[in-house]
Amino acid sequence: MVAETTAVSDLRIDVARLLARIDELGRIGRIDGPNGEWGNARLALTDADRAGRDLVVDWMRELGMEVAVDAIGNVVATRAGSDPSLSAVMIGSHIDTVGTGGRFDGNLGVLAGLEIVETLDAVGLITERPLQVAFFTDEEGSRFAPDMLGSQVYVGGLEVDEALGLIAADDGARLGDELHRIGYAGDVGCPTASPPHAFVELHIEQGPILEAEAVTIGVVEGVQGISWTEIVIIGQSAHAGTTPMRLRHDPAFCAAAIATYVRDLTHHLGSDQVGTVGRIDVYPNLVNVVPARVVLTVDLRNTDERVLQEAEARLSSFLQELAASEGVQISTTALARFEPVEFDPAMVDLVETTARRLGHSTRRLSSGAGHDAQMLSRICPTAMVFTPSVNGLSHNIAEFTEAVDIEAGANVLLQVVLDQLGVES
Amino acid sequence: MVAETTAVSDLRIDVARLLARIDELGRIGRIDGPNGEWGNARLALTDADRAGRDLVVDWMRELGMEVAVDAIGNVVATRAGSDPSLSAVMIGSHIDTVGTGGRFDGNLGVLAGLEIVETLDAVGLITERPLQVAFFTDEEGSRFAPDMLGSQVYVGGLEVDEALGLIAADDGARLGDELHRIGYAGDVGCPTASPPHAFVELHIEQGPILEAEAVTIGVVEGVQGISWTEIVIIGQSAHAGTTPMRLRHDPAFCAAAIATYVRDLTHHLGSDQVGTVGRIDVYPNLVNVVPARVVLTVDLRNTDERVLQEAEARLSSFLQELAASEGVQISTTALARFEPVEFDPAMVDLVETTARRLGHSTRRLSSGAGHDAQMLSRICPTAMVFTPSVNGLSHNIAEFTEAVDIEAGANVLLQVVLDQLGVES
Repeated sequence: MVAETTAVSDLRIDVARLLARIDELGRIGRIDGPNGEWGNARLALTDADRAGRDLVVDWMRELGMEVAVDAIGNVVATRAGSDPSLSAVMIGSHIDTVGTGGRFDGNLGVLAGLEIVETLDAVGLITERPLQVAFFTDEEGSRFAPDMLGSQVYVGGLEVDEALGLIAADDGARLGDELHRIGYAGDVGCPTASPPHAFVELHIEQGPILEAEAVTIGVVEGVQGISWTEIVIIGQSAHAGTTPMRLRHDPAFCAAAIATYVRDLTHHLGSDQVGTVGRIDVYPNLVNVVPARVVLTVDLRNTDERVLQEAEARLSSFLQELAASEGVQISTTALARFEPVEFDPAMVDLVETTARRLGHSTRRLSSGAGHDAQMLSRICPTAMVFTPSVNGLSHNIAEFTEAVDIEAGANVLLQVVLDQLGVES
Repeated sequence: MVAETTAVSDLRIDVARLLARIDELGRIGRIDGPNGEWGNARLALTDADRAGRDLVVDWMRELGMEVAVDAIGNVVATRAGSDPSLSAVMIGSHIDTVGTGGRFDGNLGVLAGLEIVETLDAVGLITERPLQVAFFTDEEGSRFAPDMLGSQVYVGGLEVDEALGLIAADDGARLGDELHRIGYAGDVGCPTASPPHAFVELHIEQGPILEAEAVTIGVVEGVQGISWTEIVIIGQSAHAGTTPMRLRHDPAFCAAAIATYVRDLTHHLGSDQVGTVGRIDVYPNLVNVVPARVVLTVDLRNTDERVLQEAEARLSSFLQELAASEGVQISTTALARFEPVEFDPAMVDLVETTARRLGHSTRRLSSGAGHDAQMLSRICPTAMVFTPSVNGLSHNIAEFTEAVDIEAGANVLLQVVLDQLGVES
């Protein structure tokens, strides 16, 4: 049943209502910056996360949705469709944040889902398939590693018991205990027994590409593969004045050589290869002491698994040569490794054609960050819609996306899910 | 008056007695390591430093020496000579240590002086000139910067009032207050009104050269010039996955490029040029974040002031090019700058000929570390004698020098000062 005055293809969300929800959720765990910018600290399964969850669940219930909580704390709210035998179309993301996060990362995707439900309700539109709006536990991984935890358990990529036993690095809390404490240890089993028909996630880009190219809608083709390595270099601490260069075994020099090698590697392997040395810890870290030990991390990403493996192999060879030439010990630990993900081509096309139909400029790109969608893509056709991030900032309280872009992204999401939901003619 | 049975040239110190003093002083502020190694923590003007000072002053008085304390806490003990009109020959070093120091650094030079006094006393030898044994305040600079503080004030290189007003970086204490508190705010004025006739400092090498070449006595020709620079690099924090390489302004890459440039610089400027990046602080220091800011230090040293200036100039040019190519801001602060010091050639020759006369292998070298002797060289002919450091270690509780080397070094010191003191024939 379609409302008489509005064609389905003309349905649009109310961006003011959506922004009001983003702001209200953002006030929980709010962090104010010195120049009017503000963001959020709602680390997974903290009191702030509970307050955020309670607010979103209240909104779900106010919209008449049926709310289910599973054993890892994922929350799935369902708006019934006309045909109970059909699987649901799911909109989802996360509402946990990093320690100094923005108010759009994750939250936008969840609250846009609620806005879409409210938009459908306003015109009394009943879809064939059920529409689900989900938020997944601990997407950020800031408190409990790994990230994308809840969605990984949801799709069967991680055993629920293993996940419940994880310990927070900072405060030593056990994930399962925290889940009970905040009242989100649900009774629905994991992995899910009812995979969605399709999954769509609206998310801010968290990078500078759309803004730099003045594009409104990012059509996400997939997610980069990620390779994180921790490198420990043991050298020989020595006096910076009394030790001739030829007698040095300097782990700080080695760390520097690695970081410049990583930069060179990205030049040699093409523009899809990115590489970052983001962490360097030097011991004892004194101006006049050749260090004894340095720990650093290398983050390599590529959309092409073959090239990513080539990058890893070249780095590994370089480390061996470096250890021999400088006379140091170098050991490595894999901190994370995900293969690249390719989203369903038909779903990607659907996002692109929908965005263009709505008059928006588009650009296909790969996500450089991990998202719940990459987990869901294991069990159903999946797509993502990106909106621009001002200055490319994210994981930062200054993270911002313009209202006009949020409106565009949420409308694309609406029309994409309507296509998948089916509407009785 | 010479004892009847021993020619002056045959006088030798008692190494067991010297080692006993080194051990007894070392027990104050003792730090034990896991494998039997042990060292000292007697930071300048702490309670431990007071206890060490009190012990050494007691020993000076037991040896019948006249003890004077100056306004910056330098302690000078005098053994009278036969001619009161002649200026003294001074043996000196320091008894403060770094936070995790060894028991030989500094202490050896002071306690070898006392051992020489006891050796002369044992044979009743009266020298023409007075013999002084001194220890200077805060040589290490670990609690109150700069290092070589007491000797610098002693020679007039730093105003005593300025030095007394210095504040400890770690605990906020004022140097003058601490000097009063521990009872070492003396009444002798600074700079000294009676420069020594000559100054000789026995010290461990604190480096690996003598051990590597199996040489017993290092004949120190001078002290390297030192240039310490702190470099602050401001880039643009960004997501390690979502930010293309071409849009990055990465201060960690810049820090790495600087550290590898410093290594290259030492190759281009010859073996007397050393360069060290010992401290790197990365913000926010996370695996998946291109950092916003990095602070690092560069320590450049050379025996040749002209080449040291060339190294500084090349580094400065490199920083400008790097800032432009990476699109970052780079600023620098000079943390320390000392020109190279050349010791008196006749004194250096005297150390060398004396060591050879005593049957020891010798090697001329420059000190890579700063020493009180470089301050004293401003006011009198000065020399240093180095003894080998096992594994080149110093500023480390595993610092060690073999007894046979300590004995050799102290005997060279004895014979050098006897030459300068003059003995009635």
